[in-house]
Amino acid sequence: MTSHSSGTTKPLGLALLGFGTVGEAVARILVERPELADRLQLTHIYNRGIERKRVDWLPSVVWTDDLEPVFAAKPDVVVELAGGVEAAGAWVRRALAQGASVVTANKMLIAAHGPELLLLAASNDSQIRFEAAVGGGVPLIHGIKEGLAGDRLSRVTGILNGTCNYVLSRMEAAGEPMDLVLAEARRLGYAEADPSADLDGEDATAKIVVLAGIAFHRHLRMADVPRRSIRPITSADFQYARRLNCTIRQVALVEAAGAETFHAFVGPALVAAHSSLGRNDGANNVVTVAGQFLGECSFSGPGAGGSATAVAVVSDLLSLAARPGRDVREAWWPATVAPAPLRPYYIRFVVRDRPGIISAIASALAREGINLDAVLQEPGYPKDALPFVITVEPCEQAALEASLAAIAGADFHAIPPLALPMLSGSQ
Amino acid sequence: MTSHSSGTTKPLGLALLGFGTVGEAVARILVERPELADRLQLTHIYNRGIERKRVDWLPSVVWTDDLEPVFAAKPDVVVELAGGVEAAGAWVRRALAQGASVVTANKMLIAAHGPELLLLAASNDSQIRFEAAVGGGVPLIHGIKEGLAGDRLSRVTGILNGTCNYVLSRMEAAGEPMDLVLAEARRLGYAEADPSADLDGEDATAKIVVLAGIAFHRHLRMADVPRRSIRPITSADFQYARRLNCTIRQVALVEAAGAETFHAFVGPALVAAHSSLGRNDGANNVVTVAGQFLGECSFSGPGAGGSATAVAVVSDLLSLAARPGRDVREAWWPATVAPAPLRPYYIRFVVRDRPGIISAIASALAREGINLDAVLQEPGYPKDALPFVITVEPCEQAALEASLAAIAGADFHAIPPLALPMLSGSQ
Repeated sequence: MTSHSSGTTKPLGLALLGFGTVGEAVARILVERPELADRLQLTHIYNRGIERKRVDWLPSVVWTDDLEPVFAAKPDVVVELAGGVEAAGAWVRRALAQGASVVTANKMLIAAHGPELLLLAASNDSQIRFEAAVGGGVPLIHGIKEGLAGDRLSRVTGILNGTCNYVLSRMEAAGEPMDLVLAEARRLGYAEADPSADLDGEDATAKIVVLAGIAFHRHLRMADVPRRSIRPITSADFQYARRLNCTIRQVALVEAAGAETFHAFVGPALVAAHSSLGRNDGANNVVTVAGQFLGECSFSGPGAGGSATAVAVVSDLLSLAARPGRDVREAWWPATVAPAPLRPYYIRFVVRDRPGIISAIASALAREGINLDAVLQEPGYPKDALPFVITVEPCEQAALEASLAAIAGADFHAIPPLALPMLSGSQ
Repeated sequence: MTSHSSGTTKPLGLALLGFGTVGEAVARILVERPELADRLQLTHIYNRGIERKRVDWLPSVVWTDDLEPVFAAKPDVVVELAGGVEAAGAWVRRALAQGASVVTANKMLIAAHGPELLLLAASNDSQIRFEAAVGGGVPLIHGIKEGLAGDRLSRVTGILNGTCNYVLSRMEAAGEPMDLVLAEARRLGYAEADPSADLDGEDATAKIVVLAGIAFHRHLRMADVPRRSIRPITSADFQYARRLNCTIRQVALVEAAGAETFHAFVGPALVAAHSSLGRNDGANNVVTVAGQFLGECSFSGPGAGGSATAVAVVSDLLSLAARPGRDVREAWWPATVAPAPLRPYYIRFVVRDRPGIISAIASALAREGINLDAVLQEPGYPKDALPFVITVEPCEQAALEASLAAIAGADFHAIPPLALPMLSGSQ
């Protein structure tokens, strides 16, 4: 019922590259919302082995596994949902170069090549949109780019990976070890057969790089963002976190440190149990944005799933249909990642207990000028694999690592210690 | 660093009508963000008694208490922050009619006259934007209108009035009566001297009417939205709500019931203690949007305050600067409000205790075909003003009201009973 600008009486012709879960869900929305037909018209679907993809509920679409007729048909918009950086990147460049706009859910492509692709779009009077690349159906990019444009933003903090959040919040609720929860997550479709990109932070890193572009018009290189895996987290960590009124989540953050420098981090961290991050359960995503004038606001919802992600794709398409010519030009300028700011840390040791351990650790920390905040030891663990926790006052990460390195060779470690930043305060 | 469409080399000239808290905060952002000067140029400030408003940190602006030179200067955008429906409405119409776009924070004006003003803007090739009318700095309108355009939305539920939320969440936390909390809220600037528009729901009703327009392109008349005051809520209600794993919030909701009909409601309701509504504390706003394809997503943040609201105004201005010509045309079509759907209710009685009361109430409910779910009575209250609670299974609101009317004359009521919808389930 929203009518668009006059002058655009013809619907945008769409070529869909990749007919997987999201691609099919996009087509499904277009079919189930016939009122969009005056603005969006799906004309081509490309996929390798297209015959096994063909569905009977999509009328008058060209199904093909050959890209040439797709590009030759001069689609108004190429919807890239194939994923991967190399082939998909070539298709996106080709589309932009021939004046088509691009809508994509490809976070890895945008994180790696966003500045170049934005420039290419600008120089061809075309557009590239990627609401679906971050936060699934949650309208983070529209919300931040347009809705918070009036502010000078200072920080974006989020839970951007649904698999990690499912695993950690289930470990917290059920008291079960990660292996068991991960197996359950695979059965329920929340984790892939190889969940490395989720657990080790590559997925969330790509997403926070995209959000940094949107919030700050700056491009961080993925390799520059410090990244930690959630794999070392144990049930005991949740028990200790609870003692500190905290819980553990995979957090992605980027924060302005200077005009062209940013703090950035992806990995497990302690967050206040009652914060929006700490209360985020299951596979949901949540993002909190802080600004100089606004204070803080948060967005949350389903961060994945074909249908939710397809909503983001179709929203981008409708935005293009409403403004088919040039629109706001976006450019991402280079930026560098600064060392972590002073932060308090949670350090969990698992030791073969004997006298003198705390003293040895405390001495190593003291030599780097790090002050202890608390020492916590819960009962009920075996003496030969005894977990305990030391929290320290805000310190340099380098100093913390130096002190842990200094005692890394000590014979009392049953497993290597684990240090987690405590983001329970302002972040 | 975002460059806008070429062809708009001249900044938009802005006339600000109303230099109160929000107006001054808008000017402050423009001064503190000089990088916006290539897009936004404040030229006129109008206010009654302008001399007492003048500030020294705003260079080269015409200060005036005469509207004629303001309109004669043909501003590109009129920023209406004066409030009120009559005078402000006339200014907005005049601005649109002479081809200026309008940015306003005026929820009452948009709720009352949105369809007419949108039409007037469309017929003059101008635009009207009102992100600041709802949710303060939270980018609800950008998020819903653009970011969720791909979905077919079904429901918008929110806490839209910061004063009510402050009062209710403080009553919950401190166990204090409303009068005391309200006095505190006034001291802290969270409540006005006359808080009727907040407590009795007029403010939240205007906001949910605006959100219904954005989400559904439909216009509900404010008078059609059933509205209840939060004034009857007592500390005892929070005690009973807690027994039900709920709390009480002023909720505003609108939900599609048919093509042109909607359920709508503004007033106190039981919500699950651990829901996003139930966990919303202080003066914050939160809005949850449900859609056919998306599931649910939520937005939260500061719903009021000059600085946060000014961010929404400046975001709208930047959006206009990026697309100075025609943009998406929005139209709101008429809609009607349907009777409430079947809902479970919480009914709190305060009685002069004597035998037979529960039986009399249960009979009155049974005569209307309403099934009791639970009867709760907490110890420690005096016999002559004894609060207890009955919850009933989902029923028609009319049936509930008929049964309460049937026993309204009974001699055991110390104060009239209070019925609250229980939105703890799907809503």
